[in-house]
Amino acid sequence: MAEDAVADIQAAELDKARAGDVRALARLISLVEDESPQVRIVIKDLLPDTGRARIIGLTGSPGVGKSTVTGALLSAFRAAGHRIAVLAVDPSSPFTGGALLGDRIRMQEHATDGHVFIRSMASRGHLGGLAASTPQAIRVLDAAGFDLILIETVGVGQAEVAIASLADSVLVLLAPGMGDAIQAAKAGILEVADLFVVNKADKPDSQQVVRDLRNMIAMASREPGAWKPPIVTTVAVKGEGIDELTSRLDEHWSWLNSSGELKSRRQARAREELAALAFAGLRGRLAASRLDELASRVAEGTLDPFTAADELLSQ
Amino acid sequence: MAEDAVADIQAAELDKARAGDVRALARLISLVEDESPQVRIVIKDLLPDTGRARIIGLTGSPGVGKSTVTGALLSAFRAAGHRIAVLAVDPSSPFTGGALLGDRIRMQEHATDGHVFIRSMASRGHLGGLAASTPQAIRVLDAAGFDLILIETVGVGQAEVAIASLADSVLVLLAPGMGDAIQAAKAGILEVADLFVVNKADKPDSQQVVRDLRNMIAMASREPGAWKPPIVTTVAVKGEGIDELTSRLDEHWSWLNSSGELKSRRQARAREELAALAFAGLRGRLAASRLDELASRVAEGTLDPFTAADELLSQ
Repeated sequence: MAEDAVADIQAAELDKARAGDVRALARLISLVEDESPQVRIVIKDLLPDTGRARIIGLTGSPGVGKSTVTGALLSAFRAAGHRIAVLAVDPSSPFTGGALLGDRIRMQEHATDGHVFIRSMASRGHLGGLAASTPQAIRVLDAAGFDLILIETVGVGQAEVAIASLADSVLVLLAPGMGDAIQAAKAGILEVADLFVVNKADKPDSQQVVRDLRNMIAMASREPGAWKPPIVTTVAVKGEGIDELTSRLDEHWSWLNSSGELKSRRQARAREELAALAFAGLRGRLAASRLDELASRVAEGTLDPFTAADELLSQ
Repeated sequence: MAEDAVADIQAAELDKARAGDVRALARLISLVEDESPQVRIVIKDLLPDTGRARIIGLTGSPGVGKSTVTGALLSAFRAAGHRIAVLAVDPSSPFTGGALLGDRIRMQEHATDGHVFIRSMASRGHLGGLAASTPQAIRVLDAAGFDLILIETVGVGQAEVAIASLADSVLVLLAPGMGDAIQAAKAGILEVADLFVVNKADKPDSQQVVRDLRNMIAMASREPGAWKPPIVTTVAVKGEGIDELTSRLDEHWSWLNSSGELKSRRQARAREELAALAFAGLRGRLAASRLDELASRVAEGTLDPFTAADELLSQ
């Protein structure tokens, strides 16, 4: 299989991607999305060109204005001279297919600019699928010379926390009336935030959201020298607050570099990635028939799942 | 370790849990939550008493009224003679701790009723933690004689989809103004729904949400004989629509049993559980120092993650 894969992916294609060719990049990311066996060949080849990009994660509940904030950040960072890639990571939805990409269209004003690349990526819906494939998509974009990669995740929840942890800086978006800060806390995303954005700050309840957040940040225990997440208010549709947002993001980037936190985050990220890949490898090796047989006994209640898992691993 | 565990968990404690003793149950679920090594002893012992409970999952974005609907369902099913346990599964939030349980308090009106058990459960925040521990909590409650177990998950996203898949019937809640049905589709939860509830149906936009949902359900491809998810509108705070909701849930339960779908769902569930436990077992066996060393090389970009994962697994 590996031999065929080498033959299929031509060196010329990889060189095109490295040069930032949009079509070549799109094809490589499709391979990643499909979890193609060719991905390992691609990554191995691109590896020497990676490690330079700064990665910003952006997450929040549906409706807080993630796409608008992402669009505004794109414009601001582009104006500052960055080459930017946006990866919108969605759980897969075969139910609705590609029809949901409509709200990305407004970002396409940047699409003619060769220094911007925008792409949605879905998983096959299994737990860990995005956790395993997103780092590969990041490597592809990194090797293509994008020095800033924005990862936008839809929804709030454990998977989003996991994806957020792939980023160097994690930006959590809230908005008044979309379920308050307490709800966000319940979803477990507050503790991964490096920066809070309260969007739609022209709405009446926004100051309450800011106050709630401030209280929660004050309540959290922090090591001496640790980063204290700032709160930025924005009205992204009007571009208000975006300059302050990019400034705060730049400050966080400086802190990451000066404190040594960047290195330890990337080490932790590699550890998670390895564990996820090892898991995928393990699943591939488990004899499917044996798994089915043991699962039947667990489903019937005649075998406990722990003993069954031991039996699987003892193979 | 296993020997100590056997000594620690006394048979009397397990008998108490089997008899539905609230304190004994709470202690066992704490063990599950902590991923204690004693859990396997507990599950092995309780296993013969499991397999009788019907499991209903309930998920939706923050703010749609999950707690209110859960409370209303509790009352209705209780009145129909069921013994009910509610497991509210939250991603962990060390940032805010137990302070978020406040909105559960209104459910405590049932707490004096010996036939209702309500419990929040958090994970340690790692991907797969809840997927591995929730089935054990279900087994404990099942063995304690609760014939109906409601699992409520906060947020929408991949982890919630995974947790929803633990249930026999999955109920997806939407509400007008909380991000529309399209947003829910983006979060990937529509295709796991057996039943839709549009709550807050007295609000003006609710009919639009129903129409959007109806269109999406019509668009989805379905096998002949497959279940077509109904849409129920409720105003849970007033108890409106709850009777219809329990009727539809009962219909789904009948269909699960008559179609053979219940058996295949439970088989699939056991397979996922086994894979998750095998993964946890594998992680436990990976020499931490070797993982760290390989992760360092991956983080530096001197080794690709696939080769590193192969090396880990070859141990």
